[in-house]
Amino acid sequence: MRFVLAAGTTRTAQIDGISAAGAAPDLMAHTPSADVEIVEYGRPVRAPIVPVSPSGCPTPAVITRAVREQLDFELTVIDAGLIRPTSTPTVSVGARGGEDVRETEPVPRAREIYEEARRFGAALPDDSVMIGETIPGGTTTALGVLTALDEDITVSSSLPDNPLRLKRNVVSEALAASDLSRGDAAGDPVFAVNSMGDPVLATVAGFTVGALESGTDVTLAGGTQMLAAAALVRHAGIDDPLGLATTSFVANDETVTLTRACDRLDLDLEVTDPEFNENDHVSMQRYVEGEGKEGVGMGGALALADRAAVDMDSLRDNVVEVYDRLHGDADGP
Amino acid sequence: MRFVLAAGTTRTAQIDGISAAGAAPDLMAHTPSADVEIVEYGRPVRAPIVPVSPSGCPTPAVITRAVREQLDFELTVIDAGLIRPTSTPTVSVGARGGEDVRETEPVPRAREIYEEARRFGAALPDDSVMIGETIPGGTTTALGVLTALDEDITVSSSLPDNPLRLKRNVVSEALAASDLSRGDAAGDPVFAVNSMGDPVLATVAGFTVGALESGTDVTLAGGTQMLAAAALVRHAGIDDPLGLATTSFVANDETVTLTRACDRLDLDLEVTDPEFNENDHVSMQRYVEGEGKEGVGMGGALALADRAAVDMDSLRDNVVEVYDRLHGDADGP
Repeated sequence: MRFVLAAGTTRTAQIDGISAAGAAPDLMAHTPSADVEIVEYGRPVRAPIVPVSPSGCPTPAVITRAVREQLDFELTVIDAGLIRPTSTPTVSVGARGGEDVRETEPVPRAREIYEEARRFGAALPDDSVMIGETIPGGTTTALGVLTALDEDITVSSSLPDNPLRLKRNVVSEALAASDLSRGDAAGDPVFAVNSMGDPVLATVAGFTVGALESGTDVTLAGGTQMLAAAALVRHAGIDDPLGLATTSFVANDETVTLTRACDRLDLDLEVTDPEFNENDHVSMQRYVEGEGKEGVGMGGALALADRAAVDMDSLRDNVVEVYDRLHGDADGP
Repeated sequence: MRFVLAAGTTRTAQIDGISAAGAAPDLMAHTPSADVEIVEYGRPVRAPIVPVSPSGCPTPAVITRAVREQLDFELTVIDAGLIRPTSTPTVSVGARGGEDVRETEPVPRAREIYEEARRFGAALPDDSVMIGETIPGGTTTALGVLTALDEDITVSSSLPDNPLRLKRNVVSEALAASDLSRGDAAGDPVFAVNSMGDPVLATVAGFTVGALESGTDVTLAGGTQMLAAAALVRHAGIDDPLGLATTSFVANDETVTLTRACDRLDLDLEVTDPEFNENDHVSMQRYVEGEGKEGVGMGGALALADRAAVDMDSLRDNVVEVYDRLHGDADGP
C-alpha cells in the first residue's frame, strides 16, 4: 500500500470566509507545504508555520502523521501546485498554483497535469494505493467541478458552519466567468477542471485514472473533494471499482449526503471513527465540535489504522504526542 | 536514521572513456533518474532504462534497493541537478545539471545550492543521517575539487581499469579553463565546486555542513566522491566527527589510498564486504572483477545492513531478486 498526497493551492482560498485551513489568509499559502512536512518528518522543516484554523483546530496532518508513526506506510507526495517551499520530496506533474475559480481558466495547464499524473499513476509498481489531498479552499473548487459536471452533490467544510451559500455564489460567478452553465462540462473532466477546478483535482483525477487503467486498486482518502475527484474519474468513462475512505466527521456532516453520493458514483465507502470524543485534548476537541473534519488523507490513514487493527486508544495518544511536539511541549521524533 | 541520496549530472560524463555509469553515452543522462527510482520503487518507473555499464555491470542502485527491502529505511532524494524526468519524489535545492568541468564555471549556482542544501541539512529532525550520491562522471569532478583544494587524494572508478591519466588530463584542462593552479581554492569550498566540481558535490557538502552544525551525526555513504565532499566540509572549517561508509571494492582499489585519506580528513571509516565472491550471479560477478565498486549509497546501505546484523547470504539472495525483477525474470515487489 502506497499513500499518495497531492498538495497544492488555489487562489480561491483567499476569498473571505471560504477556508479554515490557516490561522490567517496570508498564512494559508504555506498550509499544504507545512502539511506534507508534518506527515513526512513529524514537524514543519522549511515551512514557517504549523497550520491551525483561526479557532485553533490543528491540521489533519497531525492525525495522518500519528497513523504513520504507528504503521510506517510508504508516502509519496505530488507537487500539485505548491507556491511555498517545502522540504518534503515531491513528484512533479507540471502543476502550478491554481488561480481563483472565478477566473476564466483557473487551471490553464489542466490537460498537462492530468496526463502527467495519469502516466505516473499507471507506472507505479504497487498493487494498491490511497490518494489524499491538501489544498486550502478545495471544497469550493470541488463544488465548482461537481456543478460543471451536473453532479448534484454538496460539499463539506473545514469550518463548523459550512458557508455553503457563499460557496454557491462563488461557483455561480465562476460559471459566468467561464461562460458555462451547470452540466456544460459533463463527460469532459479535463475541461471541468480547467474552467472550474484546481490543480489538485486535476492531479488526483489523472492519477486515479492511470492507476485504475493499469490494474491498481485505488482508494480516495478524503471527503467531498474526493467525491469531486471520483466524479471526474467517472466522467472520464472509467467504471472500475473505486473506494472512498473518509472520517465519521464527514459522514456525520448533515450538509453532505455521503452515502447517496457514493451510490451515485459507485464508490465503496469506508468510514472510520477515531472516537475523539473519548479524549478532551485540544488536538481532538475541535474535531468533535465539527471543525476540520478531513484533509491530508486523514480518513484514509484512519482506515489503514483500522484495517491493521491499531488500537484507537493508542492512536489518540500518538495524536497528542504529535500535536505536543508541534507546539513545543515535547521532543522531536 | 534517514538515508539521503543526492542525484545529479555533469556534462563531464560525456567525455569519452570517463564513466561506466551507462550502457552508452547518450543513455548516461538517465542513470541518476533511474537509480533513484530503483531505490524508491524497486524498478524504473518513468526512466526508460535500467542503468548498466557497457560490459553489463548493474547499477549499485540494485544493492542499495536490496538492503532497503530488508531494512525499510527512510529515503530522501535531493534533486542535485537531474536533467531527465524521474518519478521519485525529490527535494529541490535549486540545482541544475552541471556543465563540463573544463568550462570556466561548471557549477555557476554552487553558492545557492550549497546554502539551500545546508539549510535543509540543518532543519531535518533526525539524530543521524547518511548521504550518498549518483552522478555519472562524478569521480572526475571529485578529482577536480580535490586538486583545487590541494588534497593529495586519488579517485576510484566505476571501470575495472581506472582511467586516471585521462582524468588528470581533464582536471589539468579544467584548472586552465578556470585560470586556477592546484590549491587555489583551499579554504573556499564553494569556489572549489563552482570552478572545478559538480552540483552533487555542492549539495552533499552543503547538506553535511548544515547537518553537522545542527548536531546531527552524518555518515558519507560512498567512495572517493565522498572523500571530495569530506574535503569540502573540512575546508569549510568544520571539525566535527564525520563518518565514511564504503565498500570493500573501494577499500581494495589499489589506485586509492583510502585509510590515509580518511586519516588526513579525520573520517571514521567503515568498510563493508558484501562477499559477492560467494555468489556467481551476474549481478555480483562484475563487482568481484573490479567494476562498479560504489555509488547510489551502496557502501552506506551495506553498513546499515551490517549494523542491523542482516545475514549477507539473504542479502545476496535479495540482490538477485531485485536484479531479476529489473531484467524481467520475476514479478514486481
